[in-house]
Amino acid sequence: MSTTRDRVVAAAIELLGTEGARGLTHRRVDERAGLPEGSTSNHFRTRAALVEGASDGLVAAEMLGLRAMRVESADDLVEQSAQLIELVTGPLRVATAARHVLFLEAAHDVRLRERISASRAGYVAVVEGALRDLGAPEPERAAEALMAASEGIILHRIARGDASDPRPALAIVVRGALG
Amino acid sequence: MSTTRDRVVAAAIELLGTEGARGLTHRRVDERAGLPEGSTSNHFRTRAALVEGASDGLVAAEMLGLRAMRVESADDLVEQSAQLIELVTGPLRVATAARHVLFLEAAHDVRLRERISASRAGYVAVVEGALRDLGAPEPERAAEALMAASEGIILHRIARGDASDPRPALAIVVRGALG
Repeated sequence: MSTTRDRVVAAAIELLGTEGARGLTHRRVDERAGLPEGSTSNHFRTRAALVEGASDGLVAAEMLGLRAMRVESADDLVEQSAQLIELVTGPLRVATAARHVLFLEAAHDVRLRERISASRAGYVAVVEGALRDLGAPEPERAAEALMAASEGIILHRIARGDASDPRPALAIVVRGALG
Repeated sequence: MSTTRDRVVAAAIELLGTEGARGLTHRRVDERAGLPEGSTSNHFRTRAALVEGASDGLVAAEMLGLRAMRVESADDLVEQSAQLIELVTGPLRVATAARHVLFLEAAHDVRLRERISASRAGYVAVVEGALRDLGAPEPERAAEALMAASEGIILHRIARGDASDPRPALAIVVRGALG
């Protein structure tokens, strides 16, 4: 059962993801969540607190989805990476757009930056493990390369509506990673 | 000599890049540009027009900086790509942050999306030419991979203050591209 606080966080993420940073106000979160006016303020007094609440909600959801990748081959790693990209830019598109909005707010907010960095380290470790299993000579650097390419592709799918198949570009990065 | 319109556009880009989408209002642009109140409104009546003006200003600056890359070797391509990343996340940091803010506004604004896509096609063509010169078997896909990785790295340098050397990850992508 979702608490009022959960509903507030979910509505804040939706507003960030569909309307951007300018869409996030206490009043609009109340409306979006279908809660009486003032409910959001009761849980998050300032806008900064509300942004941090949304950020923590996103990180918690990402951590839940995080599990070790089992890959059998380079093609398998390309396919699993592509499916993850299609998931976060398809069904999870709004959460991903919200994450990017928070990313940019973090450019001028050190505390927020630390919070949103928490889940990325987990993802890097998962990708690094998969690359090590496949025999990559430098799994740490290779994971950075594959994460960077994935994040560039995700950014363009979200921002520019790019719908091209991510597999060819991912295959090139994985080929270099297994060098 | 800069016109009033140029000063308005420069101030709008500065506000987007330092404070994000919420920092951009007509009044704040007047203040930042040191112009009498109402100057920004005279040139850009609506906020949407102001955002488009800032976007066109960024694209024009990028097009000016665009020239064919002459690369002699894979290492040379890695080095030139790294230097470009260091330029746009160092001296041109504010413009790059502004570009990312507009990128996210474009996620829910089709007209803006078309405008900001204009300069990217030029960059892809330059990178594709360099990869073709080096004998990449699939220069078009390889350019997509290298652009995606560069954009992921740029995003993390801007948003998370990541200051690690981009060369190792770029070298992996270039190796895969020439594979």
